[in-house]
Amino acid sequence: MPSIDLNSDVGESFGNWSFGDDAAIFESVSSANVACGFHAGDPVGIMATCQAAVKAGVTVGAHPGYRDLAGFGRRFVDMTPEELTADVVYQIGAVQAVALAAGTAVRYVKPHGALYNTIVNHPQQAGAVVAAILAVDPTLPLMVLPNSEIQRQADAAGLRTVAEAFADRAYNPDGTLVSRREPGAVLHKVEDVVEHVLRLAGDGVVRAIDGTLVQVKAESICLHGDTPGAVAMAAAVRAALLDAGIQIQSFA
Amino acid sequence: MPSIDLNSDVGESFGNWSFGDDAAIFESVSSANVACGFHAGDPVGIMATCQAAVKAGVTVGAHPGYRDLAGFGRRFVDMTPEELTADVVYQIGAVQAVALAAGTAVRYVKPHGALYNTIVNHPQQAGAVVAAILAVDPTLPLMVLPNSEIQRQADAAGLRTVAEAFADRAYNPDGTLVSRREPGAVLHKVEDVVEHVLRLAGDGVVRAIDGTLVQVKAESICLHGDTPGAVAMAAAVRAALLDAGIQIQSFA
Amino acid sequence: MPSIDLNSDVGESFGNWSFGDDAAIFESVSSANVACGFHAGDPVGIMATCQAAVKAGVTVGAHPGYRDLAGFGRRFVDMTPEELTADVVYQIGAVQAVALAAGTAVRYVKPHGALYNTIVNHPQQAGAVVAAILAVDPTLPLMVLPNSEIQRQADAAGLRTVAEAFADRAYNPDGTLVSRREPGAVLHKVEDVVEHVLRLAGDGVVRAIDGTLVQVKAESICLHGDTPGAVAMAAAVRAALLDAGIQIQSFA
Amino acid sequence: MPSIDLNSDVGESFGNWSFGDDAAIFESVSSANVACGFHAGDPVGIMATCQAAVKAGVTVGAHPGYRDLAGFGRRFVDMTPEELTADVVYQIGAVQAVALAAGTAVRYVKPHGALYNTIVNHPQQAGAVVAAILAVDPTLPLMVLPNSEIQRQADAAGLRTVAEAFADRAYNPDGTLVSRREPGAVLHKVEDVVEHVLRLAGDGVVRAIDGTLVQVKAESICLHGDTPGAVAMAAAVRAALLDAGIQIQSFA
Repeated sequence: MPSIDLNSDVGESFGNWSFGDDAAIFESVSSANVACGFHAGDPVGIMATCQAAVKAGVTVGAHPGYRDLAGFGRRFVDMTPEELTADVVYQIGAVQAVALAAGTAVRYVKPHGALYNTIVNHPQQAGAVVAAILAVDPTLPLMVLPNSEIQRQADAAGLRTVAEAFADRAYNPDGTLVSRREPGAVLHKVEDVVEHVLRLAGDGVVRAIDGTLVQVKAESICLHGDTPGAVAMAAAVRAALLDAGIQIQSFA
Repeated sequence: MPSIDLNSDVGESFGNWSFGDDAAIFESVSSANVACGFHAGDPVGIMATCQAAVKAGVTVGAHPGYRDLAGFGRRFVDMTPEELTADVVYQIGAVQAVALAAGTAVRYVKPHGALYNTIVNHPQQAGAVVAAILAVDPTLPLMVLPNSEIQRQADAAGLRTVAEAFADRAYNPDGTLVSRREPGAVLHKVEDVVEHVLRLAGDGVVRAIDGTLVQVKAESICLHGDTPGAVAMAAAVRAALLDAGIQIQSFA
Repeated sequence: MPSIDLNSDVGESFGNWSFGDDAAIFESVSSANVACGFHAGDPVGIMATCQAAVKAGVTVGAHPGYRDLAGFGRRFVDMTPEELTADVVYQIGAVQAVALAAGTAVRYVKPHGALYNTIVNHPQQAGAVVAAILAVDPTLPLMVLPNSEIQRQADAAGLRTVAEAFADRAYNPDGTLVSRREPGAVLHKVEDVVEHVLRLAGDGVVRAIDGTLVQVKAESICLHGDTPGAVAMAAAVRAALLDAGIQIQSFA
Repeated sequence: MPSIDLNSDVGESFGNWSFGDDAAIFESVSSANVACGFHAGDPVGIMATCQAAVKAGVTVGAHPGYRDLAGFGRRFVDMTPEELTADVVYQIGAVQAVALAAGTAVRYVKPHGALYNTIVNHPQQAGAVVAAILAVDPTLPLMVLPNSEIQRQADAAGLRTVAEAFADRAYNPDGTLVSRREPGAVLHKVEDVVEHVLRLAGDGVVRAIDGTLVQVKAESICLHGDTPGAVAMAAAVRAALLDAGIQIQSFA
């Protein structure tokens, strides 16, 4: 029986500020990208998210980002590789301990926001992320955008990479994501997202923005958890996959 | 051959701000209380300190504190036990990963500053620290002030506690520390500190501020690393202990 | 025509985290306690709140708090008076500039959260807040709980104090607030809150928790903006006051 | 009698971490670029620096930077113009209030570190800084690198700009600074710095790295305060200028 992983960003509340609905999104996804405290997530909130993940049977991953609470990790920060490696090691370790306290463990790493985007084509910062995982635990899988600098470096270093696609993003004919600055970059309708995910999970293809079919091999599909309607969208995607006979389960 | 552990706070630089001289202090002590990022210590600096500890053969401990960079963890923060447990778990895990990346491991925990002082007599926060260590690793020794609330709770919970004395602090006849608000609370002369440490390590006693001898059992003695003359003081203490036939080595 | 001021805490979003609905609450209140960045509020959000206040004709006040984003300023921090004075001066100045950029000015100061509660009976921190206002602008009114240490010190220093009552809090027969730890401390029903506010604004009395009527003189009444139903509650209070012929306007 | 302004970055301590020796540097300079809390500087430290500036008769300027304590404002942060304008307004206002409390006022603005470097050629961020000053006080002079994007935009907006040169930096034949990545970019010898400053202040020229003389018009010369020997260097520059009959005084 074919299967796919669904992942979502969680644990992104901070102190008195709540963000997203982790418990609700856990009813649909198999993997939880847990914020590590630098772009979002305070320890007591991270703990609650890990406990909710355990309860829901969802696999926990670490979701490190730039140290930028005010920017939610969505602004590039021009760090040195040494700084970035240490920051990522620190964040993974912090969530490892919280996950352990919650009765689980960190099973993979997915960089967040501007860091995720930067390492698609920034050799120094990509190398710093790879070095961090090698230092903490070289068996930890790393979730990556396919055909990226980070995927190449991680593969070359012997890390297990997990190619990721996006449930609500349009693709170019060459298999890259349509830039968010372009019209049509984000799919908003539930039926469009469901159709897109079914093609990805079932056939390993997407219909590109020009109408052509393009091969996109993904082991995991990212569902956004913080947009209006995110929970309903996730539930619809889950139901459609199960209807199509595709199991939803972690790659880990 | 008798032995004693000497510990010192390190890793307390932050970004561009340096603090103390970790490499120099490592020539004298056997245990390094490494800042965890909440009161001091950024990841790249914590990494450098852990690497220096490995090079010097010094044992690494985690030194968690209140989340208060502006106050250096020296101001009481009225946190809930749940918040504090999560904050301590997070900090220990963060330094565990950095220590691992540096080729070592966290071998004990010593709370920092106002947190250290608070849990001497604050049952809820003391309980929160004990809960954090139980959750992360119940075999991690916890460094404590003797006859304190934290020692009682940690003992009751089955944690290994390491009683600590202070190289430069005067004692009351009942074995408690003379308050810093009292005259004579801090020993400043090298010869006074050396004499005090030799009595502590050799005979398990101190001469209290009233002149009487008091039993103080300590497995570790804290040397301050950030005061003027700290490095010379530490070297003098080390030399005197070795001269007296007392080995300096970690309890871990 | 009699009048009363209604105030509410606003500007408490931070980066990607939104909090409360400032624009909606501005339809009902006359004074905006604008977060200053230490417990909540990033500059671009503070700017948006000040602009919305200008548009709505609401008076802007500065709402300084402890430097504790993770605790939302709701945890006591044991600062020295010198530190606290400087922190309050800094926060007031920051919001003065943002308010100016938005076309208005800071017309009063109301301390936030744990700081507000602390200076009810903490002479050193109360003195530090008074010193801050004297240093920045001795004509700035200070919003205070009546019969408090901060009111006494501010009056003695010649500051203009604005006595405040709470729309949704029960009172003891001596005119103090029922502790939040006691049952019945918070009024939840709209009709109870409306009745309470009408008595406060119309007659200068409250019905205490034991049923007796107690005199409580208040120039401003605080409406919470962040609870479920806060906006509807504020609108109901406003409508009831206007129906009773009581004008809603700033004291400034 | 000819005159020149000497400026230096100060107020860059933070909590328990001290940085530079503000009081010593104030014996030589006429203008103090005071950190505003985002890259460095906590309020109580900023207050102490402003008080020391008043005592020394040194003019106070605001020195806003990126919100990045861990990076000391030396790392580019990819902020939106709206965010940056608000951050700069906030920082200027904060120091205005602290300066007022210390008995002085902010007389100019000089952006810090990576922000200073970015706005040399980043139109959006340069525009955001100009917008901030227009919003706070359009009469505040802005210190700039000559022939930069920020100078052009500030001039076009009608701001008063103050061209700045660097006491310890080598220049290219076109009047731009030699990149720090090139050999010889920084002058280390006191006699070289003194000769360079005398040429700048006396003749409005520098000897470029290729030996040619180049015109560089500067109203202010920056002396670094945080390098080893900085205080002695500043004193030597001051003495040489006075010997040459050149007064040291603020442009403001």
